[in-house]
Amino acid sequence: MKEIGLGIAGLGTVAQGVLQILQENGEAIGRRSGFSLAVKRIASRSLKPDVDLLGAVFSDQLQDLVEDPEVDIIVELIGGETAARELIQSALGAGKPVVTANKAVIANYGNQLFASNSRIPLRFEAAVAGAIPIISAIQQGLVANQFEHVVGIINGTCNYILTAMQNDGAQFADALSTAQSLGYAEADPGFDIDGVDAAHKLTILLALAFDTTFDFSALHVEGITAITAEDIRYADELGYKIKHLGIARQTADGLEARVHPALVPKHQLLANVDGVLNAVLVKSDSAGDTLFSGPGAGGAATASAVLADVVATAGELQSLSGEAIPSTARHDGQLKVILPLEQVNTGHYIRIPTRDEPGVFAKVTEALSRHGISIDAAIQKEPGAGQDVVSIVMLTHRVLESKIVAALDEVQALEQVSGPVARIRVENLD
Amino acid sequence: MKEIGLGIAGLGTVAQGVLQILQENGEAIGRRSGFSLAVKRIASRSLKPDVDLLGAVFSDQLQDLVEDPEVDIIVELIGGETAARELIQSALGAGKPVVTANKAVIANYGNQLFASNSRIPLRFEAAVAGAIPIISAIQQGLVANQFEHVVGIINGTCNYILTAMQNDGAQFADALSTAQSLGYAEADPGFDIDGVDAAHKLTILLALAFDTTFDFSALHVEGITAITAEDIRYADELGYKIKHLGIARQTADGLEARVHPALVPKHQLLANVDGVLNAVLVKSDSAGDTLFSGPGAGGAATASAVLADVVATAGELQSLSGEAIPSTARHDGQLKVILPLEQVNTGHYIRIPTRDEPGVFAKVTEALSRHGISIDAAIQKEPGAGQDVVSIVMLTHRVLESKIVAALDEVQALEQVSGPVARIRVENLD
Repeated sequence: MKEIGLGIAGLGTVAQGVLQILQENGEAIGRRSGFSLAVKRIASRSLKPDVDLLGAVFSDQLQDLVEDPEVDIIVELIGGETAARELIQSALGAGKPVVTANKAVIANYGNQLFASNSRIPLRFEAAVAGAIPIISAIQQGLVANQFEHVVGIINGTCNYILTAMQNDGAQFADALSTAQSLGYAEADPGFDIDGVDAAHKLTILLALAFDTTFDFSALHVEGITAITAEDIRYADELGYKIKHLGIARQTADGLEARVHPALVPKHQLLANVDGVLNAVLVKSDSAGDTLFSGPGAGGAATASAVLADVVATAGELQSLSGEAIPSTARHDGQLKVILPLEQVNTGHYIRIPTRDEPGVFAKVTEALSRHGISIDAAIQKEPGAGQDVVSIVMLTHRVLESKIVAALDEVQALEQVSGPVARIRVENLD
Repeated sequence: MKEIGLGIAGLGTVAQGVLQILQENGEAIGRRSGFSLAVKRIASRSLKPDVDLLGAVFSDQLQDLVEDPEVDIIVELIGGETAARELIQSALGAGKPVVTANKAVIANYGNQLFASNSRIPLRFEAAVAGAIPIISAIQQGLVANQFEHVVGIINGTCNYILTAMQNDGAQFADALSTAQSLGYAEADPGFDIDGVDAAHKLTILLALAFDTTFDFSALHVEGITAITAEDIRYADELGYKIKHLGIARQTADGLEARVHPALVPKHQLLANVDGVLNAVLVKSDSAGDTLFSGPGAGGAATASAVLADVVATAGELQSLSGEAIPSTARHDGQLKVILPLEQVNTGHYIRIPTRDEPGVFAKVTEALSRHGISIDAAIQKEPGAGQDVVSIVMLTHRVLESKIVAALDEVQALEQVSGPVARIRVENLD
C-alpha cells in the first residue's frame, strides 16, 4: 500500500478529529482507498500534551510543513485568515497539494489562490456544511447538470436558534442564550447570527455551481437578530417555517446571491431540517431537486470531510508530474455580476403593528396595491383584552424588492401604524 | 481538451436522457471536467428514427461496442440481466471500462464481474437511487467513516403508493391504480411492490458500506401489499409514517440486511421524504446522520448519475496502463453472514381485529407479556355503530423477531380475534 505523508497545520478540535479518525479507522481507510495515511508533521503554536500525535514530529513553525520532504499533502486547520492564506500560498508554490476547512480564506482569497496555481490541488470540502459531501456532489455527482438554484441551511447556530424559537416559542435573545450555554453559539456570536459565516459558505457554493469567481462582497447578507417569536408563530399559522438561508439562483433576470431569513413551506423537506443540522437543496436540470443534509460543524464531522479530500488528493499525487489535474481540485470561474437585490423577485411576509381602528386594513392594502403588490394570504386578529395594538400579517405574491420597499415605506408612514413593520422574504422552493 | 469516445448500449429512456444531456450540457461538462464526451457508437435492437444519435454509428450488435477502437468507455443501459452481464463481462475482458445503471446485474453478478477483473473500472452510481450520488457519498465523501446503518427509501413506486395512502386515505389497490395511471408503477408492478427492486439496491449499498460481497439472496425481503389504509391511519395517530425501507445495519449482534415496510417517527427527516422521491440516511461514526434525497428514477435523473460515472471513469483512463485503479471503481468485499431475521431486534406495530367483548385487551397483553414483550403505546377505540369488530393497536418496545412471531401466533389463536393480525416493524432511526 502506498504511504502518503500528511502535514497538519493546527491542533484544535478539527485537527484532533483527524488524528482520532486516523487512529480508529486508518486501517479501513487504507483498505478502501489503497493509501496508508501517515501524519509526518504537525505544526501549531503550542503542543497539547494530552493529544496523541500518532508519532508525528511537532513544529511551532508552519513553514516546516512545506519544507518537510516527507509531507506529501498539507492539511490546513489553523483557522483565521492571514497565516492560513500564507501557508496555503506557500505550499501550493512549493508544489504541495493542500486540503483546508477554511471557508473564510477560500471565500476571500480563493481567486488569488487558484489564479496563482493551476496545477496543484487545493480542496475544501470541509469548508461548507461540515460532514456533508456537498462540494463533491456539485462538482462530480451532478457534473452533467446546469444548476437552477442552490439553497442551503448552512449555519448551524442560526438553525439551532430558529428551531428553538419555533419549538419553545422563545424569543431570539433567550434562544441565543440557550445556544451559548450548550456550546452551539460563541460568546461573541456575531459571525454566525449576522450571516457572515453563511455568506462565506454561499460564496463557495455560488462559485462552484455557477462557475463564478469567489466574490464574497457581492452577496446581500442579513442575519436573524430581527426575527421575533411572533413572526415565527404567524409564519407557522400560515404553513411556513422561518429558516436562515443561503440562496444562489440563476433566474431569467440574472444571478442571485443572498443570505437572509426566509419563510419556507412546511411541506418542503428543507423546512424540516432542524436544530444544528445543515442541509443544501440543489435544483438542477436533469437531477431535479436533490437534498443533502447532515452535521454542519463539530470536530469529527469536519474531520470526516477533510479526510475525504485527503484521499481524493492522494489519488492525484502520482499524476501531478503529468498534464492537467482533475478539475475538482482547481477552480477557474468567471466574474459574473450578481443581480442587485432591488431586482430580485420573491414573495414577502409582512407584519404591521397598528392601532385598533376601523379602516386600517384598507389603508394598508391600498398602499400595497398602488405599488402593484397583491396579497396571497392575510391574518388579522382581534386585539386581546386591554390591548390597543393589533398585528396585520400578510403574505404577498412575488414582487420586485424595490416595490415592496417603497410600498412598506408608505405603510410605515401611516399614522395608524404604531411600530416598525417587519418583513421576511418567502422562498417556496418550487 | 481530451476527447473520450462513448459506446452506449440501449436506446431507452435513460440512453435518450444521456444523449439529450450531452447535447444540451456537453460543453459545460467539458469545461468542468476537461473531457469532451463524444458518442461514437450506439447499439440497440432497433433504431429509433426520432432520436438524435449525435452522429454516432448505430449497430444492432452489442459486441460492436467492445470491438470499436473509438469507444473508450461502454455505457450499459439495456436493462435485463443476461445480455447486459455478457456485455459487461466482454467489455471488461477487453480492457474497456463500463458504466452501468443495471442494479439487477450488479446485485446478482457483481461478485463474478469484480472477481474476474481487478483492473478495469466498473461503475454503477445510477443503479441506486437515480440522481442521488449515494454511491460516491459512501465510497468517497464518507470514506473515513465506519458505518452504523444505511437506511433508504429506495423504491419510488412504493413511496408514491404509501404517500398517496397517507395523504388521501386511499387503500393499497386504489393507490396502485393511480400510480399505474400516472406512470409511477408498471402494468406488472410486482418487481417494485414486492420489494425486489429495493432489495437489488440494498444489496449494493450493503456491499459498499459494509465491505461485503453482493449477496442478494441473503436479504429478508417484504413488499407493501399488506399495508392497509387503517394501518397508516393508526400509525399517524401514534406519531409515525409507514415507509418502505431498505435497511443495512451493523449491530453488536451482527449485520442486518432487510427490506420491509416500517413505521418511522414523523419528526425524522426520512419520514418526510414523500411521493416518488428516494432518500438514503447514512449513520456513521464521524459524520453522524447524513441524508441524501432526490429523484430515484426517470430518464434524465438516471442519466445525470450515468454521466457523473462517465466523467469519473474518463479521469482514470490515462492511468489504466499503470498500477492500481482507484478503489471506487472496483469492489473486493468479504462474504459476511447476515443476521437471521429471527435474531433482529426492533419495535413493532401490531393491529389485532377482535370481537367487542370484555377482557380481550387483557388476554392480548397477557400473551405478549408471557413472551417478554412490553407495550410502548396502545390505541383501543369504541366500535362504531353497528360494528362488532374493534381493532386493538399497539406499539411494542424492541424485541427479538422470534419472540414477537411466537407471541402473535398465540394472539392469532385467541377465539376473540376475528381476523388476521397485522404487524409492521418500527425503525426509530436513533
